[in-house]
Amino acid sequence: MSEFSIIEKYFEPLSKTGALDDDAAVLDVPQGQQLVVTSDTSNRGDHFVEELSPSDAARKCLRSNLSDLAAMGADPFVYQLNLALPKEIDEQWLAGFAGGLEADQKEFGILLSGGDTTAMSAGALSVSITALGLVPPGEAVPRGGAQPGDLVVVTGPLGDACLDRLRLPYPRTAIAPLIRRYAKASVDISDGLPADLGHICAVSGLAAQIEFAKIPFSKKVQEALRDGKTTPQDILTWGEDYELALAVAPEDFESFKAEAVKQGVEPVAIGDFTEGNQEVQVLDESGKPLSFQKTGWQHF
Amino acid sequence: MSEFSIIEKYFEPLSKTGALDDDAAVLDVPQGQQLVVTSDTSNRGDHFVEELSPSDAARKCLRSNLSDLAAMGADPFVYQLNLALPKEIDEQWLAGFAGGLEADQKEFGILLSGGDTTAMSAGALSVSITALGLVPPGEAVPRGGAQPGDLVVVTGPLGDACLDRLRLPYPRTAIAPLIRRYAKASVDISDGLPADLGHICAVSGLAAQIEFAKIPFSKKVQEALRDGKTTPQDILTWGEDYELALAVAPEDFESFKAEAVKQGVEPVAIGDFTEGNQEVQVLDESGKPLSFQKTGWQHF
Repeated sequence: MSEFSIIEKYFEPLSKTGALDDDAAVLDVPQGQQLVVTSDTSNRGDHFVEELSPSDAARKCLRSNLSDLAAMGADPFVYQLNLALPKEIDEQWLAGFAGGLEADQKEFGILLSGGDTTAMSAGALSVSITALGLVPPGEAVPRGGAQPGDLVVVTGPLGDACLDRLRLPYPRTAIAPLIRRYAKASVDISDGLPADLGHICAVSGLAAQIEFAKIPFSKKVQEALRDGKTTPQDILTWGEDYELALAVAPEDFESFKAEAVKQGVEPVAIGDFTEGNQEVQVLDESGKPLSFQKTGWQHF
Repeated sequence: MSEFSIIEKYFEPLSKTGALDDDAAVLDVPQGQQLVVTSDTSNRGDHFVEELSPSDAARKCLRSNLSDLAAMGADPFVYQLNLALPKEIDEQWLAGFAGGLEADQKEFGILLSGGDTTAMSAGALSVSITALGLVPPGEAVPRGGAQPGDLVVVTGPLGDACLDRLRLPYPRTAIAPLIRRYAKASVDISDGLPADLGHICAVSGLAAQIEFAKIPFSKKVQEALRDGKTTPQDILTWGEDYELALAVAPEDFESFKAEAVKQGVEPVAIGDFTEGNQEVQVLDESGKPLSFQKTGWQHF
């Protein structure tokens, strides 16, 4: 198939009528909104698990971008799709890939605005998505807004990606308006909680203490921890959770939680930001800090 | 080097202060402007010539996006950079690549807003850029605006990329304001003049006749044609010229040309759009249509 027939058959239907006809897409940014821009690249053999279906591979790429937008408190707007495909990619793969995008476009309210489809040699496959979101002026949530005394809050259970690499993350798009209303700082957990919380601490100039016992885990993760099939360190440094870590003022937490629960999300307070030297401590049940030696932790 | 040290050392200096600190960049779109979005992916061994220096590889990728923006009549705003790099990429390569971007950012007035840097296996290398531009509302130049009687205009000499694969294109960013003022339809010539002019004809529902003798060529291309070292077909279907093909009303052409020349660009009228069945004819000196059998021509 030529580039043009691939676009016409699989990607034109995912875009607004006519958006792919020109050299570039022309977009009206709704008046009085700021633009939020993020990118994520997934390569076969790397972020991609080989066994991921084409549909799930597409959804995972799009969702990692949506998670970044949600972290900023931004509502989804449009995305650009850049594909570098090996020549052996067939129509079945393309149909599955486009089908996954179509399903998630409906679920999360975003449209394709354009992109580029190119051929790669030697079996390599790379998917880059740049997503644009919208926020009311000044309401985007940075990493640097945490203050001493703020609660460390996570938006859902962590660690499942460590046990099930085929699992699709679920971006917290539904509560983006609540993130911008209640969160003072925010980050999406893609490299592991201590590493990503470390980003907030670094930019905010703070430390954080969290209690391992307060971190929400699924039944599966709880059992694996109890049976010694995994360790707290493995669970917390795997990354790819795509839940959000937030700084929320203590007096706002109950209102935030009540409104989030209505959207099917249950935020959990797991610790505090404090004055200190940009260090993240995860305390065990006896109040002793766990030690981390893995790269997830080293990452930042 | 880790992803974070690569970003800090090479890409942070290319961005606005703090733009890469968060999960996404927050941008103020100047009031009363529409956003123009385009993407281009280059892969090693494909669009990349192996011998292209890291600096020129970076510039070529960025410039192909700038050319798309210029075709729309859009002024450059910001760009996202997605890199999938083989593990053997070293600091020297990265320094050269970032240096090329820095030079072109200054030359064309665009800043890095973010991106993603990932590792690829097996020597594969893929560079995706998504560029954002700005136009006053309603002034973006589509492919579909040509009318019968409009002149077919190109913005500079064609065919040099066919003789010199290491040549860097020069995007027509400087005349973007003139493009939106004078051009009724526009396309950038990346697949060869007949193929890309074919896009205008397809969307505008017109035919076009151009005279080969009127097409501007550099001395080098003229000599190669005269000496039989290349053919009109090869020259016109090679692509990668990154000049623009425009539809301009005959009464506007002289004003357009006079203003463009002040910006160092010399537009040349090479034919006409006519009623007809979306066909592009290139006429030789005797008025007979040249026949094309190559893929550049087949592309659309």
